[in-house]
Amino acid sequence: MFVHSVYFWLQNPENEADRDALNAGLQTLKTIDAVSTVYVGRPAETRRPVIDHSYDFALTLVFTDKAAHDVYQEHPTHLQFVADCSHLWSRVQIYDSVE
Amino acid sequence: MFVHSVYFWLQNPENEADRDALNAGLQTLKTIDAVSTVYVGRPAETRRPVIDHSYDFALTLVFTDKAAHDVYQEHPTHLQFVADCSHLWSRVQIYDSVE
Repeated sequence: MFVHSVYFWLQNPENEADRDALNAGLQTLKTIDAVSTVYVGRPAETRRPVIDHSYDFALTLVFTDKAAHDVYQEHPTHLQFVADCSHLWSRVQIYDSVE
Repeated sequence: MFVHSVYFWLQNPENEADRDALNAGLQTLKTIDAVSTVYVGRPAETRRPVIDHSYDFALTLVFTDKAAHDVYQEHPTHLQFVADCSHLWSRVQIYDSVE
């Protein structure tokens, strides 16, 4: 499997409308066929020095392989999400891993 | 769901025995009942400035909720993994998120 983990830091983390807009955008990614599993989360209540909880949203996408991930990257729904929402975040951090 | 994502940087990334030992330790975590889904991966071949591919192993654990995650943290198999393998890594970075 191919795991694509993305962490988003909002430009205006205190702005509820921005938070809702990013969340709504992330939810649209669940409709993309190439994706096997999707988790959209917020930071958990865990606190240890090795845990980064400073982000606003976590997106975990699981694909059967890199080919499926590549289809997702170019999918119109994904491109629309980036076009609609990229102004909302100040930073993204991505980790891609393969089994 | 509760997603626990851990990235490991080996103390000696060029040492094959260390790499195999950490991988073997990570595989034991798959036997823990409280875990719903486990992915153990290596960095994918994707390269963009927002992608961190400097780590050696990625562990993605999915739990039904934080209570299941807490059971995992204290599970003997997890504690054994930390006791056996923590000398192998120089850094871990964790992100915990809840849906």
